[in-house]
Amino acid sequence: MFDLTGKHVCYVADCGGITLEACKVLMSKNIAKLAILHSVENRQAIVQLQSIKHSTQIFFWTFDVTMAREDMKQYFDEVMVQMDHIDVLINGATICDEQDIDATVNTNLTGMMNTCATVLPYMDRQQLGKGGIIVNVTSVIGLDPSPVFCAYSASKFGVIGFTRSLSDPLYYNQNGVAVIAVCCGPTKLFVDQKLTAFLRYGQCFADRLRTAPCQSPAICARNIVNAIECSQNGQIFIADKGGLELVKLHWYWQMADQLVHYMTTSNEDGENDD
Amino acid sequence: MFDLTGKHVCYVADCGGITLEACKVLMSKNIAKLAILHSVENRQAIVQLQSIKHSTQIFFWTFDVTMAREDMKQYFDEVMVQMDHIDVLINGATICDEQDIDATVNTNLTGMMNTCATVLPYMDRQQLGKGGIIVNVTSVIGLDPSPVFCAYSASKFGVIGFTRSLSDPLYYNQNGVAVIAVCCGPTKLFVDQKLTAFLRYGQCFADRLRTAPCQSPAICARNIVNAIECSQNGQIFIADKGGLELVKLHWYWQMADQLVHYMTTSNEDGENDD
Repeated sequence: MFDLTGKHVCYVADCGGITLEACKVLMSKNIAKLAILHSVENRQAIVQLQSIKHSTQIFFWTFDVTMAREDMKQYFDEVMVQMDHIDVLINGATICDEQDIDATVNTNLTGMMNTCATVLPYMDRQQLGKGGIIVNVTSVIGLDPSPVFCAYSASKFGVIGFTRSLSDPLYYNQNGVAVIAVCCGPTKLFVDQKLTAFLRYGQCFADRLRTAPCQSPAICARNIVNAIECSQNGQIFIADKGGLELVKLHWYWQMADQLVHYMTTSNEDGENDD
Repeated sequence: MFDLTGKHVCYVADCGGITLEACKVLMSKNIAKLAILHSVENRQAIVQLQSIKHSTQIFFWTFDVTMAREDMKQYFDEVMVQMDHIDVLINGATICDEQDIDATVNTNLTGMMNTCATVLPYMDRQQLGKGGIIVNVTSVIGLDPSPVFCAYSASKFGVIGFTRSLSDPLYYNQNGVAVIAVCCGPTKLFVDQKLTAFLRYGQCFADRLRTAPCQSPAICARNIVNAIECSQNGQIFIADKGGLELVKLHWYWQMADQLVHYMTTSNEDGENDD
């Protein structure tokens, strides 16, 4: 059980409704600081959030998740002046534009990984931090393919691969930073966008989605926060149909016996004992 | 069984040994045309390839897979003057640089997807093509996470997500272009590179890999071509330990009953019959 009380939370997101709803839930958890890093400032939302809990400090910074890595470093140096440290990093910036593959991947995957790489030293208990948790908010389309959103699905598969890799005990045992992902099922807000299929043959499917019955962003957001509170390092959750489900992860590849033997018996300077 | 005899093959790759080895196998298959799109021209290799089969036309074009989509379109317009049509597109460009997340994702994932999107109209049997096959050469680390190559793994997970999405019957039944992926296990050439772990805690693991016992690129390349010949649309293969294995794909998410009902019963103009 991860207790959010008194925590410093940094929420990086462009994804509209779910972010605001998740922030509302976070504000009810007695966190100490909430930083929202977003492309557009929504002052009304900040006022609304502050009214939930006056003692929680809320900060807003305009942030572009696709900025260059070196600029990101400078940016977070400034963020840290106010935040002091970060216990929880939530990556939720996302776009779905099948006609702009670069933008979709840069925001959903590259930007998320650059953010993690930049923020990790501030969370790493061997460096500037106290350990904590990184939460990658992604999609069920990152677990299973999508017939119409090929680039979006690819970027979200990438988030799952990154989350599972970065949560390896090799890292967690050293830095104390747990890494989890929450895969949201379709929400009313998502399908209500103008959705274009990767190839025109898929457009009728995309069009049909627009009025599809889906979970509300508020319920999905509540389950994202539930996942943070109940998670263990490396876990992947599905937040869909109003519920939260822990994913049983599947492994496909078996390392050759010879390679396993080598990796477990070779000595530290890389020589093989064979 | 996909018969390579007389086919026009376009191989987009930066990946050194495996590409050359796979091209040698392709040259022995009586293909009509082989286009190699690579960042550096290796004239000696072209001479070697031509000596295998004099009747196959070989073309080389210098190609940067990270070029902008609109430039890529112009580029392939020129390629098609010589190629006439493309039956087989093999995407093999790959880099593994954990310190440069952008470069790793741009080459391995975004570049691959932009190439597919650009070449598809020339292969699509409803547009300029005759159908055919797209082969994404990726890694076992695209199926399972990697403790040290987090960004590389993310990019390769993305390739799997894209391959599985683009091979949906919704597309294949229209364009006649099968899409498969071959996940290579580690090869001697791959591990022999200077490999840097995503976080420094993983570096001893990365260093140890350098002298690890792995399959030869030549055997892996032969299995890539085997996969092309025996594949069906949507299949994912593992080429490791000197063999070729068909992956049984796992599904994680179940669409809500209400959504399934809606998608299968709503009429064409997007109205719900409920």
